[in-house]
Amino acid sequence: MLIDGLQCGTFNRTVFEELRAGGLGCVTNTIGFWDDAVEGMQSIADWYALERDNGDLVEIAYTTADIERIADSGRTAILLGSQNSRLIDDRLDFVETFHRLGLRVMQLTYNIQNTVGGACCEQPDSGLSRFGRHVIAEMNRVGMLVDLSHVGERTCLDAIDASAQPVAVTHSYPREFVDHPRNKSAQVLDALAARGGVIGLSVYPNITGDHAATLEDWCQLVARLAERIGVAHIGIGSDLGRFIAEQDLAWMRQGRWSRETEYGAGSPQAPGVVDDPDWCNNASQLSSIAAGLERAGFSGDEVEEICGGNWLRVYRQVLDSAPQQAAG
Amino acid sequence: MLIDGLQCGTFNRTVFEELRAGGLGCVTNTIGFWDDAVEGMQSIADWYALERDNGDLVEIAYTTADIERIADSGRTAILLGSQNSRLIDDRLDFVETFHRLGLRVMQLTYNIQNTVGGACCEQPDSGLSRFGRHVIAEMNRVGMLVDLSHVGERTCLDAIDASAQPVAVTHSYPREFVDHPRNKSAQVLDALAARGGVIGLSVYPNITGDHAATLEDWCQLVARLAERIGVAHIGIGSDLGRFIAEQDLAWMRQGRWSRETEYGAGSPQAPGVVDDPDWCNNASQLSSIAAGLERAGFSGDEVEEICGGNWLRVYRQVLDSAPQQAAG
Repeated sequence: MLIDGLQCGTFNRTVFEELRAGGLGCVTNTIGFWDDAVEGMQSIADWYALERDNGDLVEIAYTTADIERIADSGRTAILLGSQNSRLIDDRLDFVETFHRLGLRVMQLTYNIQNTVGGACCEQPDSGLSRFGRHVIAEMNRVGMLVDLSHVGERTCLDAIDASAQPVAVTHSYPREFVDHPRNKSAQVLDALAARGGVIGLSVYPNITGDHAATLEDWCQLVARLAERIGVAHIGIGSDLGRFIAEQDLAWMRQGRWSRETEYGAGSPQAPGVVDDPDWCNNASQLSSIAAGLERAGFSGDEVEEICGGNWLRVYRQVLDSAPQQAAG
Repeated sequence: MLIDGLQCGTFNRTVFEELRAGGLGCVTNTIGFWDDAVEGMQSIADWYALERDNGDLVEIAYTTADIERIADSGRTAILLGSQNSRLIDDRLDFVETFHRLGLRVMQLTYNIQNTVGGACCEQPDSGLSRFGRHVIAEMNRVGMLVDLSHVGERTCLDAIDASAQPVAVTHSYPREFVDHPRNKSAQVLDALAARGGVIGLSVYPNITGDHAATLEDWCQLVARLAERIGVAHIGIGSDLGRFIAEQDLAWMRQGRWSRETEYGAGSPQAPGVVDDPDWCNNASQLSSIAAGLERAGFSGDEVEEICGGNWLRVYRQVLDSAPQQAAG
């Protein structure tokens, strides 16, 4: 099953058709970046409406069994993900309420420090806060995947250590290939792998440099990373975002916390929306990755693991291990 | 099965033990009166914690099957209810999000007018608003019981007419017996019954006058009401509230909307906490009602209907008819 560990941007019927054209069995979406609890609840409700209106193409998944059932039916399972823990409004209990609403993946921080910990675009990194430790324990308890993609180095290491369950870096890239604050150090990736986690490798040019210019380049780097951390800890996390306009970028990068121009993963030299690589500028093209990985020397089993099996293993371990909850 | 259509006050282990001593199969609680969306989400999360800590006595029910399973296990099923629709923050979509969080009963207004309609303690009564019509349709769609207990006369009639499902007056009393703004006119009760709804009869002295002074008095009035609207439309809705202090009353009656003393169902002559009748001052005594109804002339089948069967019928029709939802 082909699984993409993270996509962002606008989701509409065109995007859902691209997911189907690409044969995606499951994708984690981005319900928001700076939502507070009320806004987060609304964002999820908007997804209920999207699901109602596009039920022939997508369905929200809450368990691994859901993912398999939805994919088997020829549709794409959507895992609801938030790129920030801001939406729990600093309330520990809201981890569970958002889990009940359907949230299954939550990134601890988005670019800047919050009450949970430090982020990739801010120095110094406080490490995981006292509240953050409780949040991770609660995410473990209810069955919500910890995402460290935009999280700071020290907080990543603390979170991997604090979590009783494997954690994820849903959309990033190894810093040994591209030295960018959004990318993950060898130390983080080693620790992630040692605890059974997975990194989803992105195709986003701002963090992949020229390593994702062609499918062959990208697959070569997958092979190099696999030598280091093992095939079992690598997945796809494209970070594809469709229909992102300049104002959307400004919201993602500045939210309500800055009136100055913030560049996020961009830079003064690359301030705006960048084109995804030609070989992968929408989800329909993700289907080409399997063949590329085979050409790069991976076996059929390894290709299946990287293209979805590893994500499915982590989802099964994290999402399905929580105590059975009543229907909402 | 013995079912109480509404209780309020503080819920703690003592109260849960009283529910068990009374043999309650199901009770609708009061998660709040003036909560906004964030506060409402927290109130429900507090109930998740209460459930975790007292799982040997109570469990939150989401379906009629849950109610039957929980009662059969010798515990009390809790239906989560809000005494105000304020918690949806004027967002139509939040009917569904609160349903996913577990809310199954929602009163449209609490004493004063809101965006949904008019209330029992305010003149004139606007009737059901445009938004209110959408809210009721959405409650019908997701499977949430409309409660009209503290709702105004005209809004009650509008809501009964607007709802595709039976509605409830979970805790009130017939105005023909006691002329009090909190009580329901014959017109409302006739319309409620004609659509298959149920009124839960209270034992609260402020609205029952001296008609609930003894179990025999109370049961006599049940018999009189049954002649008018039929046994099938009568249930218990005690409105028992344990551990209510003066400051709790002030919050219930004034919320954040008034700095003046508001009396709610009380009056300048009866401004404070009133004692529930001796025969029914906590839930453990509700078990005496069945025998009282038999002595008042009801058959065994009729007693079962009034003591729980009618509520169960409405719950089955309203809560279980909604499209199957995924586990939260």
